[in-house]
Amino acid sequence: MVPLTSPADGRNGRTLTEDEIFAAHEGGKLSTGLPFAIDTQRALATAYTPGVAQVSRAIAGDETLARQYTWAHRMVAVVSDGTAVLGLGDIGPRASLPVMEGKCALFTAFAGLNSVPLVLDTTDVDEIVETLVRLRPTFGAVNLEDISAPRCFELERRVIEALDCPVMHDDQHGTAIVVLAALRGACLALGRELPPLTVVITGAGAAGVACAKILLAAGVEDVTVVDSRGIIHPGRSHLNAVKTELAVQTNPQGRRGGLADALIGADALIGVSSALVPEDLVATMNPDGIVFALSNPDPEIHPDVAARHAAVVATGRSDYPNQINNVLAFPGVFKGALDANARYISEGMKLAAAEAIAAVATAELSRDHIVPNALDPRVAPAVAEAVAEAARRA
Amino acid sequence: MVPLTSPADGRNGRTLTEDEIFAAHEGGKLSTGLPFAIDTQRALATAYTPGVAQVSRAIAGDETLARQYTWAHRMVAVVSDGTAVLGLGDIGPRASLPVMEGKCALFTAFAGLNSVPLVLDTTDVDEIVETLVRLRPTFGAVNLEDISAPRCFELERRVIEALDCPVMHDDQHGTAIVVLAALRGACLALGRELPPLTVVITGAGAAGVACAKILLAAGVEDVTVVDSRGIIHPGRSHLNAVKTELAVQTNPQGRRGGLADALIGADALIGVSSALVPEDLVATMNPDGIVFALSNPDPEIHPDVAARHAAVVATGRSDYPNQINNVLAFPGVFKGALDANARYISEGMKLAAAEAIAAVATAELSRDHIVPNALDPRVAPAVAEAVAEAARRA
Repeated sequence: MVPLTSPADGRNGRTLTEDEIFAAHEGGKLSTGLPFAIDTQRALATAYTPGVAQVSRAIAGDETLARQYTWAHRMVAVVSDGTAVLGLGDIGPRASLPVMEGKCALFTAFAGLNSVPLVLDTTDVDEIVETLVRLRPTFGAVNLEDISAPRCFELERRVIEALDCPVMHDDQHGTAIVVLAALRGACLALGRELPPLTVVITGAGAAGVACAKILLAAGVEDVTVVDSRGIIHPGRSHLNAVKTELAVQTNPQGRRGGLADALIGADALIGVSSALVPEDLVATMNPDGIVFALSNPDPEIHPDVAARHAAVVATGRSDYPNQINNVLAFPGVFKGALDANARYISEGMKLAAAEAIAAVATAELSRDHIVPNALDPRVAPAVAEAVAEAARRA
Repeated sequence: MVPLTSPADGRNGRTLTEDEIFAAHEGGKLSTGLPFAIDTQRALATAYTPGVAQVSRAIAGDETLARQYTWAHRMVAVVSDGTAVLGLGDIGPRASLPVMEGKCALFTAFAGLNSVPLVLDTTDVDEIVETLVRLRPTFGAVNLEDISAPRCFELERRVIEALDCPVMHDDQHGTAIVVLAALRGACLALGRELPPLTVVITGAGAAGVACAKILLAAGVEDVTVVDSRGIIHPGRSHLNAVKTELAVQTNPQGRRGGLADALIGADALIGVSSALVPEDLVATMNPDGIVFALSNPDPEIHPDVAARHAAVVATGRSDYPNQINNVLAFPGVFKGALDANARYISEGMKLAAAEAIAAVATAELSRDHIVPNALDPRVAPAVAEAVAEAARRA
């Protein structure tokens, strides 16, 4: 069993050094560039005054021309208040910036979209919605990022209602899309069907709630969610709005108790809670089981330990097989939504994204390759096409 | 006399065509880019998870590290509500976008700064200030642009008070800086001194007010401002706050009446009003006079006509000599302010910028070359250095 180091990139055998990481972040990870040089009077007069006045006048006459003649329509704003950054928690907007810039860099690198971090010095849901409404002409889509639960559920709902453009909280739906794709891949590798699986999700934060919802939407019949206080069921007290909804929609067998009670006879465990899962509990799952231990950098259970009991194991780490990485989803989801001029991202578009990711993995499918590699250049275009098609169908 | 066409770029003899302008704006004039490729697991793990967590943790411990390890400190937000766009007026935020993108492109091309347009769907001063305060961690400086007068005066003052970073309304101060530089150049070309000049400014909007103020700060003793209702003096009714201040600070001879009364015996006319100035009025100015007819694309008086009576003529156009173009000032002003970690842009920094621009022109000085060419690559670095030095002195 290889000890887990953090941060690690085991595939090429060298752990990342602190110096290497900080050097790469010097000056930030994003820059603005120009499609053409402005080094002649003619270029200056075209890009700026007096030429630009013609373009502005045309848009004043027909606002839809802004899609064609400005960058805004292809610009994804990565919006955060810094309240739930990676595993670091509420570290504030300034400290969240390196993560948001990284996200923008991935939008640029994987989907060819423009992307800019907008980090907000307020955690008030009303104020965040209001700010984005005022900025609406600035961007073409909004990726909400690293916003704490349960605020993130209300915030996403309200931003979607307020804006006529694609909006997605990636910690919820990006994760859920890739989890569904990976579960499809695992089923295919094991010769099993998705709907009859008994699935246990640990964690009822952003990722856990969205995973439960997308699995239900994909036809999984038996989903049970376990939070820090145990199995979520309608008889429990102190359930917030989202958990009350989950209590009704999940746990069809009416299980009660803790994780141990949930895992006995389960087919799949999806860990998105950062709480450790003891080996002896995993040992009570059904044969041919599936374990996704997705907390980063420290999985809920070491993948080598999980593999003693489960047939397929996945983590969020790049140094083990089956990396569940949101980058498989979000660049293509937003590109597809913008390509189709979608006004929102529907459940159907998310399901289509998961299918597209799973389809790319199919050719090389094995228990150690249930999802494509995070860097696979085929993924984002395939996801974008599937999402755009789903958007146009709707 | 060459007839004025619009838009024109006479220097290479071909007028810009509409097709050429729109083709150059297809997809916008700005894009986000990456300083390094993200095409290996190692790069992904460095730029995003898990590596990025170390950088975020470091900034959470010491927020000043955000200057070094994020792009925000070198990012100028170009902020507009679209209420006074070029000569087009209140065309709204979407239609203003091509202008704001062009401005961002110039910040990038001339000063190597990152720059992003933030266009706001509100014209309420309180709301604009509040929005920028919430977005504060997102940017390193704010260039206010194309905001109508007199709101622009209050807005700039309030944004400066609310934010601990460089803020400048370029339509005011960018123009004023270049006008002062050009007036210095004109004086030098004519062998005259700046302080004893009698200067008449037509227009009391953003540019007119800022020109009056910077000329007073530079020691010009006799400045008179004329708006659509005539000479501004303390006895006039219906003066807004800014004009009331001007009435006290300017017009030391106590002139009353209209432009005709102001121009008799004046040494310099600075037109920033877009109202036409008849030739017979210019004919009443002193010999060896200076006429800056800066409205774009249509100057207050045709430069060939003005040249019949004035010794030095300047316009805002690139197809005539002596183009007064803000691009000579704003890239270097913001670069210098950011280089020096300045918390605001002082009067001294603006005066230093004007001197630096004038100094670059000195080597090739003539009546037809009182300011450097807008594309002169020496200007922005010289301005930045002078501004940074002034900031450090303060």
